[in-house]
Amino acid sequence: MTSDKSQIVLPSGLKFSGVKCGIKNSGALDLAIISTDKKSVAAGVYTQNVVRAASIDWNRNITPTGNFRAVVINSGNANACTGEQGVADNQQMASQVAELIGALPEQVCILSTGVIGHVLPMKKVSAGIAEAASTAARSEDHFRLASQAIMTTDKGPKTVTQTVKIGDEQIQFAGMAKGAGMIGPNMATMLAIMMTDAELTAELAQTLLANAAKESFNRISVEGHTSTNDALLLICSGESGVKVESEPQINQFAKTLNAACIKLAKQIPSDGEGSTHLVSIEVTGAQSEQDADRVARTIAASALVKTAITGADPNWGRIVSAAGYAGVPMEIEQTDLQLNDHYVFQSGQPIEFDAATVSRSMANNFETRIQLKIGSGSGSAMHWTSDLTVDYVRFNSEYTT
Amino acid sequence: MTSDKSQIVLPSGLKFSGVKCGIKNSGALDLAIISTDKKSVAAGVYTQNVVRAASIDWNRNITPTGNFRAVVINSGNANACTGEQGVADNQQMASQVAELIGALPEQVCILSTGVIGHVLPMKKVSAGIAEAASTAARSEDHFRLASQAIMTTDKGPKTVTQTVKIGDEQIQFAGMAKGAGMIGPNMATMLAIMMTDAELTAELAQTLLANAAKESFNRISVEGHTSTNDALLLICSGESGVKVESEPQINQFAKTLNAACIKLAKQIPSDGEGSTHLVSIEVTGAQSEQDADRVARTIAASALVKTAITGADPNWGRIVSAAGYAGVPMEIEQTDLQLNDHYVFQSGQPIEFDAATVSRSMANNFETRIQLKIGSGSGSAMHWTSDLTVDYVRFNSEYTT
Repeated sequence: MTSDKSQIVLPSGLKFSGVKCGIKNSGALDLAIISTDKKSVAAGVYTQNVVRAASIDWNRNITPTGNFRAVVINSGNANACTGEQGVADNQQMASQVAELIGALPEQVCILSTGVIGHVLPMKKVSAGIAEAASTAARSEDHFRLASQAIMTTDKGPKTVTQTVKIGDEQIQFAGMAKGAGMIGPNMATMLAIMMTDAELTAELAQTLLANAAKESFNRISVEGHTSTNDALLLICSGESGVKVESEPQINQFAKTLNAACIKLAKQIPSDGEGSTHLVSIEVTGAQSEQDADRVARTIAASALVKTAITGADPNWGRIVSAAGYAGVPMEIEQTDLQLNDHYVFQSGQPIEFDAATVSRSMANNFETRIQLKIGSGSGSAMHWTSDLTVDYVRFNSEYTT
Repeated sequence: MTSDKSQIVLPSGLKFSGVKCGIKNSGALDLAIISTDKKSVAAGVYTQNVVRAASIDWNRNITPTGNFRAVVINSGNANACTGEQGVADNQQMASQVAELIGALPEQVCILSTGVIGHVLPMKKVSAGIAEAASTAARSEDHFRLASQAIMTTDKGPKTVTQTVKIGDEQIQFAGMAKGAGMIGPNMATMLAIMMTDAELTAELAQTLLANAAKESFNRISVEGHTSTNDALLLICSGESGVKVESEPQINQFAKTLNAACIKLAKQIPSDGEGSTHLVSIEVTGAQSEQDADRVARTIAASALVKTAITGADPNWGRIVSAAGYAGVPMEIEQTDLQLNDHYVFQSGQPIEFDAATVSRSMANNFETRIQLKIGSGSGSAMHWTSDLTVDYVRFNSEYTT
């Protein structure tokens, strides 16, 4: 899943570590720390679920900030729905990391993912934090270990790196994410951490991250179940000395951040549990971007659309009718639908098309592209999702108590 | 699926027929007519999908009415997304029925269900209408034939009959419905027809039907895909001579209608494609009925909840977290969850419970009951859905072009 297999350049001013401390019974890596050499900017975007983990409230209180020093991530246990104990354990994780790197607890973010309703094994977590803090380094290997330590049911790590020029000066972007659908016997969590060595204010970082999230991580789904622990962070070490201040600088930075977020976000439904296709949905011609987004989301949530794609079935009826109940206006007579660039419905009418050819194209490509125009407006939006397979259902129903 | 297997009493003033005319390749019954002996009251509630069949627009224009004479229902072809031809065919069906029973086209409703995007085989339909009109009768056998002729992927007919006293006088209710999820290679359609021999105005019939729909047919789902053809009719022949006018009469009628609609509606997710459980979801303690309804709907739409129930997994985390993202306020510390009467989460905390016992109860009962209290409010709502199985996915993805 790593998008850059060749030598990668990491943002300066950041250290990474990934260790195994026994939260996961499998013995896989399960604790990571990403720290900055000095006080840095960090911004965050968090789950909207009203049932949420202690870590989410903690991070929300301390970001955006210009005083960030580290984020500790554990996988295998989400520390959600764990009451007072969960709040205390979260606080203890922050305190321990802070002490080890010479910072204050409120300079440390926490991300957790895994089963919910179970108290963290704090002795193991504590040993993991000690090991991770002492082994952190800025190397490709350490970056890779960290990206593996945040995984749960992911088939592989999800990362992105990018070099970009702001004016004449060069900055580095890197990102890692996890998420594939279900976790242990419980739920999906999406975690992502974007990093750069550019220098920008906490307020600007927050604004640009929130904008980027709207077009990337907020536009993906596997089964549409919003987790208690979803979080996206942006860490800006400032170590490159390249300032992002002027409008052209900000535009260039935002463009790169958005593209990197989309690249990383798409890796999540690509790895959706049991999935055999990435489904990209582009809705155009809507009266607003919001309307287009609602239509795309409704199509993405349809079990009938998802199963049709699993079966390489160019079933335009399921797609058009899903759009129809999204609750937004459609100009039917201006509605066109393409599947992998083949028109299958045009001007509000079914058209003759070679179903076998379209089906073959769907069967032979990992990505199925749905392009739906719903009228003459200028609103458009993208969404990426997984298909729905027998393996998804099998995986999520074969739990034995 | 028939809820009354013993001798049933049908409302007077109504005739039924069900025939096979070859719309379905299988040779199964595929055309039904329900007609009244004289001008009657009819009310209707229809799909909110903006992509909708010609029949929906037709019915919406002529109901509520005091001039109703017949409804013709064809299965196997939804006559949706068929453009001008579809509108003309719909008109022709109404005209032919009208002519055969001595009425005007605008006294005839049309319901269609089946594949979309295909023009109706009008020669076959026309022959079917002629046969159905000439064979219509008020008998249990004919009622059963009609209830079979409206089926698509249903495993069996879905009917309800009820005798009720309005004051000292007796009236009869009967109803039939179809719907199981997918139809042919295309989509789900829910059709239901409620009938009574009580006498009431068209306006009152419309109000009471809309209210009944809110608590019954609008509170069921299989995969949540709103069809282009969904329709619910109420036909009141008035033949019993029993008037529904005073407040106590109206209340008694409404209560019976609501109960009959719920009884019929629940048969649809019970027969959900591939389903192994009916899931009833009761949400209480919300700040409003609307909030409770949103939470119940969100839980019902969660693939993670549905697969957990398939696997008899008392997975409270999936249910509580789905409630959390419904977009309504929750009082977490007042949140309780019961599965088949066993508490599994109380006062916002996981509790100790015998998972094996709860799982066994889920495995051994066709109905899994979810009771979720989300706070101290007085808003409550019910919802009924199917679970999500490997067979559902297999059935809906194993389409070959």
